[in-house]
Amino acid sequence: MLLTDTLVDFFIATRKHSEELCQPLETEDYVVQPIVDVSPPKWHLGHTTWFFEEFILKPHAKDYTEFDEDFSFVFNSYYETVGKRVVRSDRGNLSRPSVKKVYEYRTYVTTAIIKMFQTEQQSDIYDLLEIGIHHEKQHQELLLTDIKFILGNNPLLPVYSDKLKEHPLEEHKSDWLTIEEGVYDIGHSTGSFCYDNELGRHKVYLQAYKISNKLVTNAEFLEFINSGGYERFDLWHAEGWDWVNQNQIKAPLYWHQVDNDWYFYSLAGLQEIQPNAPLTHISYYEAFAFAQWKGLRLPTEFEWEAAQGFFSWGARWEWTESAYLPYPNYQKADGALGEYNGKFMVSQKVLRGGSIATPENHTRPTYRNFFHPELRWQYTGLRLAK
Amino acid sequence: MLLTDTLVDFFIATRKHSEELCQPLETEDYVVQPIVDVSPPKWHLGHTTWFFEEFILKPHAKDYTEFDEDFSFVFNSYYETVGKRVVRSDRGNLSRPSVKKVYEYRTYVTTAIIKMFQTEQQSDIYDLLEIGIHHEKQHQELLLTDIKFILGNNPLLPVYSDKLKEHPLEEHKSDWLTIEEGVYDIGHSTGSFCYDNELGRHKVYLQAYKISNKLVTNAEFLEFINSGGYERFDLWHAEGWDWVNQNQIKAPLYWHQVDNDWYFYSLAGLQEIQPNAPLTHISYYEAFAFAQWKGLRLPTEFEWEAAQGFFSWGARWEWTESAYLPYPNYQKADGALGEYNGKFMVSQKVLRGGSIATPENHTRPTYRNFFHPELRWQYTGLRLAK
Amino acid sequence: MLLTDTLVDFFIATRKHSEELCQPLETEDYVVQPIVDVSPPKWHLGHTTWFFEEFILKPHAKDYTEFDEDFSFVFNSYYETVGKRVVRSDRGNLSRPSVKKVYEYRTYVTTAIIKMFQTEQQSDIYDLLEIGIHHEKQHQELLLTDIKFILGNNPLLPVYSDKLKEHPLEEHKSDWLTIEEGVYDIGHSTGSFCYDNELGRHKVYLQAYKISNKLVTNAEFLEFINSGGYERFDLWHAEGWDWVNQNQIKAPLYWHQVDNDWYFYSLAGLQEIQPNAPLTHISYYEAFAFAQWKGLRLPTEFEWEAAQGFFSWGARWEWTESAYLPYPNYQKADGALGEYNGKFMVSQKVLRGGSIATPENHTRPTYRNFFHPELRWQYTGLRLAK
Amino acid sequence: MLLTDTLVDFFIATRKHSEELCQPLETEDYVVQPIVDVSPPKWHLGHTTWFFEEFILKPHAKDYTEFDEDFSFVFNSYYETVGKRVVRSDRGNLSRPSVKKVYEYRTYVTTAIIKMFQTEQQSDIYDLLEIGIHHEKQHQELLLTDIKFILGNNPLLPVYSDKLKEHPLEEHKSDWLTIEEGVYDIGHSTGSFCYDNELGRHKVYLQAYKISNKLVTNAEFLEFINSGGYERFDLWHAEGWDWVNQNQIKAPLYWHQVDNDWYFYSLAGLQEIQPNAPLTHISYYEAFAFAQWKGLRLPTEFEWEAAQGFFSWGARWEWTESAYLPYPNYQKADGALGEYNGKFMVSQKVLRGGSIATPENHTRPTYRNFFHPELRWQYTGLRLAK
Repeated sequence: MLLTDTLVDFFIATRKHSEELCQPLETEDYVVQPIVDVSPPKWHLGHTTWFFEEFILKPHAKDYTEFDEDFSFVFNSYYETVGKRVVRSDRGNLSRPSVKKVYEYRTYVTTAIIKMFQTEQQSDIYDLLEIGIHHEKQHQELLLTDIKFILGNNPLLPVYSDKLKEHPLEEHKSDWLTIEEGVYDIGHSTGSFCYDNELGRHKVYLQAYKISNKLVTNAEFLEFINSGGYERFDLWHAEGWDWVNQNQIKAPLYWHQVDNDWYFYSLAGLQEIQPNAPLTHISYYEAFAFAQWKGLRLPTEFEWEAAQGFFSWGARWEWTESAYLPYPNYQKADGALGEYNGKFMVSQKVLRGGSIATPENHTRPTYRNFFHPELRWQYTGLRLAK
Repeated sequence: MLLTDTLVDFFIATRKHSEELCQPLETEDYVVQPIVDVSPPKWHLGHTTWFFEEFILKPHAKDYTEFDEDFSFVFNSYYETVGKRVVRSDRGNLSRPSVKKVYEYRTYVTTAIIKMFQTEQQSDIYDLLEIGIHHEKQHQELLLTDIKFILGNNPLLPVYSDKLKEHPLEEHKSDWLTIEEGVYDIGHSTGSFCYDNELGRHKVYLQAYKISNKLVTNAEFLEFINSGGYERFDLWHAEGWDWVNQNQIKAPLYWHQVDNDWYFYSLAGLQEIQPNAPLTHISYYEAFAFAQWKGLRLPTEFEWEAAQGFFSWGARWEWTESAYLPYPNYQKADGALGEYNGKFMVSQKVLRGGSIATPENHTRPTYRNFFHPELRWQYTGLRLAK
Repeated sequence: MLLTDTLVDFFIATRKHSEELCQPLETEDYVVQPIVDVSPPKWHLGHTTWFFEEFILKPHAKDYTEFDEDFSFVFNSYYETVGKRVVRSDRGNLSRPSVKKVYEYRTYVTTAIIKMFQTEQQSDIYDLLEIGIHHEKQHQELLLTDIKFILGNNPLLPVYSDKLKEHPLEEHKSDWLTIEEGVYDIGHSTGSFCYDNELGRHKVYLQAYKISNKLVTNAEFLEFINSGGYERFDLWHAEGWDWVNQNQIKAPLYWHQVDNDWYFYSLAGLQEIQPNAPLTHISYYEAFAFAQWKGLRLPTEFEWEAAQGFFSWGARWEWTESAYLPYPNYQKADGALGEYNGKFMVSQKVLRGGSIATPENHTRPTYRNFFHPELRWQYTGLRLAK
Repeated sequence: MLLTDTLVDFFIATRKHSEELCQPLETEDYVVQPIVDVSPPKWHLGHTTWFFEEFILKPHAKDYTEFDEDFSFVFNSYYETVGKRVVRSDRGNLSRPSVKKVYEYRTYVTTAIIKMFQTEQQSDIYDLLEIGIHHEKQHQELLLTDIKFILGNNPLLPVYSDKLKEHPLEEHKSDWLTIEEGVYDIGHSTGSFCYDNELGRHKVYLQAYKISNKLVTNAEFLEFINSGGYERFDLWHAEGWDWVNQNQIKAPLYWHQVDNDWYFYSLAGLQEIQPNAPLTHISYYEAFAFAQWKGLRLPTEFEWEAAQGFFSWGARWEWTESAYLPYPNYQKADGALGEYNGKFMVSQKVLRGGSIATPENHTRPTYRNFFHPELRWQYTGLRLAK
């Protein structure tokens, strides 16, 4: 547990970082929702603020006056416990509250939290503040990838920033790391922050396996495309094959073929494919089909965690073969915070790692990200195992 | 045909009026598209501009430089003749071009048109300019009703303006006008502007009928609601009854029941229902069911046109019983302008009249508006006949 | 009005004819519903029987015992007045009652009706019996076209009968009939049977027009196909063009291209296209696009009726340009029978004529058939006008 | 590996059993497909036959003449390797081939297989015959549950048989079995038949756990219903909660509330709920919500397999918490048979056990059944763990 001053500093820095991420945007970019999975940036700014207001200020702060009672309806995401809300697919239909009003809301709540924690002993709700900060950090990752989708989906392909190092190259030599058969400890063990889904450190028996020290690169995936990988049903899951055909998938998200050359949309605009950059923006189905094509497979999340000390990671979220399930002895938190993770533990795949969209200090070897297998707008890549 | 100066003045005034309609908006309001029928205001501003650029400046102006070649893709509505376009349901997914850029586009094109018509003899394309102006006027009506939907669909129910006289009362005494059996001339006959669908003045035989001198009011429709009109299948068309049930329709669009009182959203915000205001924002299905309930019927468009000299109109678009079909000897224009009206002549109903959203001088006794029977976001009302 | 004996004979003959139509079927053919518009043959056999039981026997016959109280739920079509029913799209999901049981139901009801009308004076319900007979005749037409769809949709393309003269040739010389401008009487006027939608004989003013003495043939439509008619958006209504593209329409229903030759499925199995047979199984959209391509148009239902004495008809149902709307002074019948026609008077097009599926004496010059514009499984063709 | 004679006897008995299962059906019952997951009985009879013809007779039998070349198109299920096929949702639209023809097809193929294996040494394809037999046994289970759905979905609720012991009571005393922490061997190890997904016997580390010796009963689930379990979002996965609301789920499949009493449809017709019968026809979502409500959980498939020697099973398929994933070193078979299991290893849950629909000798402790979490038409139940 952090001391008050440090935690308040951490809070302030986090709040500021969300706003910095939006700095390159036009007002209009804050509003739209091109697909249901992508939320408008102003919604992220408002929702992370509402979280502090709803779970800390309203129940715990003395004499706190709610900023606007309608905002709970607008900025609640899915917490059934705290009442009705705008359905997710309608977020992009709301022009109001305006961006300016959302920033006012942020300042109002940020100020109230600082005042509350600086003027009074609040040790019993430190963990609530901490989870609120981590909640906002999670949304920062979505914020950047949602912004990328909003801009990359626009026929004008606008530039977000040409300063971001979005595609760190993967230039070290490829090698197989060998991990021996045996019992491994999995799950979070230190005193530092983690989510409930990482807890319950427990033993897992792993058969001997090998795992690559390197992420799959664009150049390797181009070979898959050129060899007809998207047309060979035998490489795909049945539902992956339906997905390819129904959506006419022929390449990763953001890839564009112009004449015979491949380009991709990056936050710096349209660029030629970089062969040595790690492949990204693929679905689990594509990751699996690629591995099949290589005669290899994806690691499980346990294999990944047991081996993670031996390779560098953090450039991409890496699809694993594991389904997102509770660890033994998983305990859901009480009340609204209990809705955080447990209710999503079906029909999703685990990703491990982190990406350039992941805020500093927001990932760790035990962190479990999860998405439905068809989703591609995160920085999703893959590492092979055998 | 107007003389150049008058026509250019008319052009300037029309361009200005579109922008005045948007004056009360926040930037965010220009962007969203809550349902597929409602286009973002910035799209209307861009599309009406593109029409002048595509059909006048590009083919006819000397040395004209296109503002931005991607705009044709963004702002084309449905003209298959002039290439690919953003699909209609995606208009609200585009944050760019920004509102500021769209206004620059407007100024650029407005200036080029004025220069073109003021410096050269352009008599051969006067009619193109005239149709472009009327096209923009048509969009002004959509612009205001789309703005109303964008704001009225927002849970914050923001105010657009409290100066607009949106609900002129219908306070004269109700009476039946009797029209004699006989042959009537229908269609446009004067030299002034009209659309191709009004042309081909022709004879229609009408049986004797009576038509009300008054629009149906909110008070009358409340009686229908209170008597269970929305629950009586026998009053409805089969497809109207499906529509009521699938969409859980219980009142006109924008009506809200709070405790036991009825309110409606108006451009001035939420207000109590005004009993003497003409009913509006109903579908054809509702108009028909109401007439059935009264033991009466809607007039045909011919009955309306033959009688229109005897009652005041223009407060609402009025649903008629007529399907939208070509008049005898209807001729579609050549080229892209031929896509204007003819291709919609199936599965729609004719409305006659005009509304407070209709720009000045933009309606006339022969004007034929048309919508699918389930649509309600226009100022649609009804007048009874028997 | 027919005398009792004649009417009972007419009833017996009609009941028998329905069963004869099913004689070539396998038991399995009675059960399936490949698309929602096509009902299983056993449903038609049961529904027409239920009509007599529900509207005549149950309310009017002395001591009548219902055959099976669940059948009302199974065989009601859409009469909201008489209670709940199996939804239309579920008809093909019901294996029971078995075909054998449905035939028992038919015999039971047929016998009860005969007994009722032969043993007692029933003059006050003659008209109910008459409408029941005509109702069954209407279903006979659907029965045959539904059977054709069930078999023609099967990859094995089974033969129904090789004795039916399904494609009478249209071999007379093509000519234009000229009809003079003036007022014409439209609607049913004699004392013989007709539906409520034909009543209210009234005057219609027609401009001078010409109408073909001949139906459009397969050979003419092949020219349209070969000239790229299905790829030219300018020939189609906007919603017709969407229909073509969403459904990948490239030819009339039942047409198959094998190598470079065209075949069609007929009730006698797969056959080469007959050039001189009248075109059939087209949607209204296709009829309209074909007329556009010829620079001509479809007649209205009034033009058709005014001219019908001058050409032979009855080989095909002919699409008209008219929407299905009530005639002036149209009166809906009271009670459940009032649901017969009026509630469908929106979003449909009128067809005139008749077809080889139409039972003898079941069509007449004033008969108004109606379907949604995209439907093709009836014997729908077209006649041109100008 | 079985000796030829035994294997042929096994083949004959299996073929005969499929036909015995259909003995109580009317011809019409063989044809319908009320939901996409349920196939028509005649399709099962044809498809299992096609499997022998396609994979054994056509490639391996001397001088074999195909029964009907169109049947491959009709009866292929999903094997992309062997060509085009009727899409799954269209199976119920095919009235032909008739039931009689399908039985002829069965006899033809059964006879050809017997002759082939009795007259020649075929040891190299024994395993193909064995997998074909097990394939048919798998379909026997579907056949019975599909028949139940076809009849149970019919408003007449017909009886299939009153001789089947469909709901064996679970009358022993409830108790918790304690399993110690440690490494367990999981997967198939004997020489007898199993599917590829059971192979690769491997070690799994299990934390200490307790597992019930008893299936959850109807009486226990009634308590869940009565306590409002279907209305408490906090008990459900997010997607389970959506499923409950979108489908208005209020009870297990086949349960009917009449006045205040609960009944269920069984193969013997509508019956009162038996309190001591094991609960069945529930989705994974319902199994999970019930366990949440009890403060307990479902076992994983590994926990189930490690403990299965200590409790009786086979009355129901039991949902587990495990996702359906490949075991370590899972190897997909080559060719079309490789499509058997591997391509379904995403988005499904594992079930263990067996049910009254499972053919004799067709389940074993290592057998892994799998279904999507929302499916309920199998005999799916649950056993609790903690």
